[in-house]
Amino acid sequence: MKKQTDKSEGTMTKRLLRVLAGEPVSPPPVWLMRQAGRYLPEYRAVRARVADFIALATTPELAAEVTLQPLRRYGMDAAILFSDILMLPWALGQGLEYRAGEGPVLPPVRDAAAVAALDPGRVTGVLMPIMETVRRVRAEVGDATLIGFAGSPFTVACYMVEGGGSRDFAATRGMAYGEPAVFRRLLELLTEATVGYLSAQISAGAEAVMLFDSWAGILPPTLFRAHVVAPTARIVAALQERHPGVPVIGFPRLAGMLIGEYARETNVQAVGLDTAADPALAATLVPAGVALQGNLDPLALVGGGAGMAAETRGIIAALRGRPHIFNLGHGIVPETPPEHVARLVELVRSA
Amino acid sequence: MKKQTDKSEGTMTKRLLRVLAGEPVSPPPVWLMRQAGRYLPEYRAVRARVADFIALATTPELAAEVTLQPLRRYGMDAAILFSDILMLPWALGQGLEYRAGEGPVLPPVRDAAAVAALDPGRVTGVLMPIMETVRRVRAEVGDATLIGFAGSPFTVACYMVEGGGSRDFAATRGMAYGEPAVFRRLLELLTEATVGYLSAQISAGAEAVMLFDSWAGILPPTLFRAHVVAPTARIVAALQERHPGVPVIGFPRLAGMLIGEYARETNVQAVGLDTAADPALAATLVPAGVALQGNLDPLALVGGGAGMAAETRGIIAALRGRPHIFNLGHGIVPETPPEHVARLVELVRSA
Repeated sequence: MKKQTDKSEGTMTKRLLRVLAGEPVSPPPVWLMRQAGRYLPEYRAVRARVADFIALATTPELAAEVTLQPLRRYGMDAAILFSDILMLPWALGQGLEYRAGEGPVLPPVRDAAAVAALDPGRVTGVLMPIMETVRRVRAEVGDATLIGFAGSPFTVACYMVEGGGSRDFAATRGMAYGEPAVFRRLLELLTEATVGYLSAQISAGAEAVMLFDSWAGILPPTLFRAHVVAPTARIVAALQERHPGVPVIGFPRLAGMLIGEYARETNVQAVGLDTAADPALAATLVPAGVALQGNLDPLALVGGGAGMAAETRGIIAALRGRPHIFNLGHGIVPETPPEHVARLVELVRSA
Repeated sequence: MKKQTDKSEGTMTKRLLRVLAGEPVSPPPVWLMRQAGRYLPEYRAVRARVADFIALATTPELAAEVTLQPLRRYGMDAAILFSDILMLPWALGQGLEYRAGEGPVLPPVRDAAAVAALDPGRVTGVLMPIMETVRRVRAEVGDATLIGFAGSPFTVACYMVEGGGSRDFAATRGMAYGEPAVFRRLLELLTEATVGYLSAQISAGAEAVMLFDSWAGILPPTLFRAHVVAPTARIVAALQERHPGVPVIGFPRLAGMLIGEYARETNVQAVGLDTAADPALAATLVPAGVALQGNLDPLALVGGGAGMAAETRGIIAALRGRPHIFNLGHGIVPETPPEHVARLVELVRSA
């Protein structure tokens, strides 16, 4: 298995990788969470050719195509693998269906038997097409950086326990309090599977990986330490061991005042800031060598115009001199006018 | 109009008011957000006697009864007026309906004409029954403290613009970016109306007031300053002018790392900590004289047992020596076993 150690490959001229290595680069490199997706007509055209989201994510030709679309249109500094954090539970054998207007639906995993029924042995085989997508995209990214990703164990567990999205994931938190041993077992299983999954993406060509932890902020600090920080630290350590030099970006959404502790304790190379984070204050909370990624409000991108320009310039000014990757504070929304994205990239590039 | 200045009335022997004046009291006084409500059989019995929530909130005899129920059952240190943050838009003339399983539904306010149609002149008359509830409860609270409340202008605007609850209040943020002048006008109107509404509650007998800002955390820092901090500061200043000595508790849910700035800039006497806040860290971010309220996870209360006990003791230990009011980090949920609440109060009282 070939290890991708970026320094030895001399790819450190890629602007985004330089930032992830701790170097401030001006203007900052830019990409956007969910930059491939429904707001783009060329995405909708590809999506119309398959029956559902899973078919799209597991057909390398099409998944590679939609991954590359925003690079062609906007010249983004990164390609983010087109996939979904729920591909892992699906590969573990949990049912998964994307229903229009309803989001993902899964049969809930709420007891020891349901956890025991998950089969880590399936993952490598089932997710093989995704590695083929990674290889195809890597061959095409040029100066851009290919970022692989997974959901964090906690956020993936949220959807697995709840059986889909939720406003407060009460069943998940209830399980964390009421069935702590079963919940820990589920997180351990997901942590191991996530290491294998991200490691395979790196071996296939991902130059950095990101852990999406959309629901990190719903936990009290005790459970945040146990179920967000500790599994993330284990994943980072295991990946550093297997793939030295390949950076990990953590995105603990709504971690709020605990973002500094998250950065210090997990050893991630970059922290994604959510919309609510104050970039200047975050820069004082997160150790100086750790890159910061973010954090324009996706709704400011929908609005465009002077409001978007002021927010964008403010974020860049607040993080000048820090290693910074410009991004949104949450995923792009389908209502986003594509021309606003073009304008945003211009704004960042001229900052 | 009689002003309730607590010091002049010699009520500072009330434990909760001492904490709000900046004094650490051990064990901390305790009450719970939504302590009157669906988890209590005696509440459901009263609720069954009226057609809907609005009828309950505007019938002083019944609203006073449900406000007092948790004091009788648990001996809470505070009574929180039984009402809802949407009573203010309802009084301003916006339609409001509570649909079972769906939450509140309002005709959305999204343009200048809809804002202009709101009628602040109606509020005093329409909300008169609520003041009668306050008077009745105040006569019965004994050593407990009667807390009045309103939603913060921003959070109330969220429901008014969206037309109900939402996962991300995209229409509201979209209006803040896309129609900034109209959005500011709506917030100014709500700020004025909230001052009048809280002032009337204080005049009727509320000994402290709380501003619920459930959705403060969905905003980027620039809009947090403009739409959360600034209106709150104006409300606090106006109330201090009219009712010197009556404390204001602010609850900017999910303010995260900005909680210190919120406390400093608004001059609230206490800050409510949400579930995600780390109490020890919050104590370093919020100025020492400002009381902290919170912040047990409502799901830990549902779970009960050793988990609840450990969380409760941890919060109390982290805030020992600070002015602290024990509470939840968010409202009590309907699934809460009433006996867990009794156990929680015992735990706090024996801490």
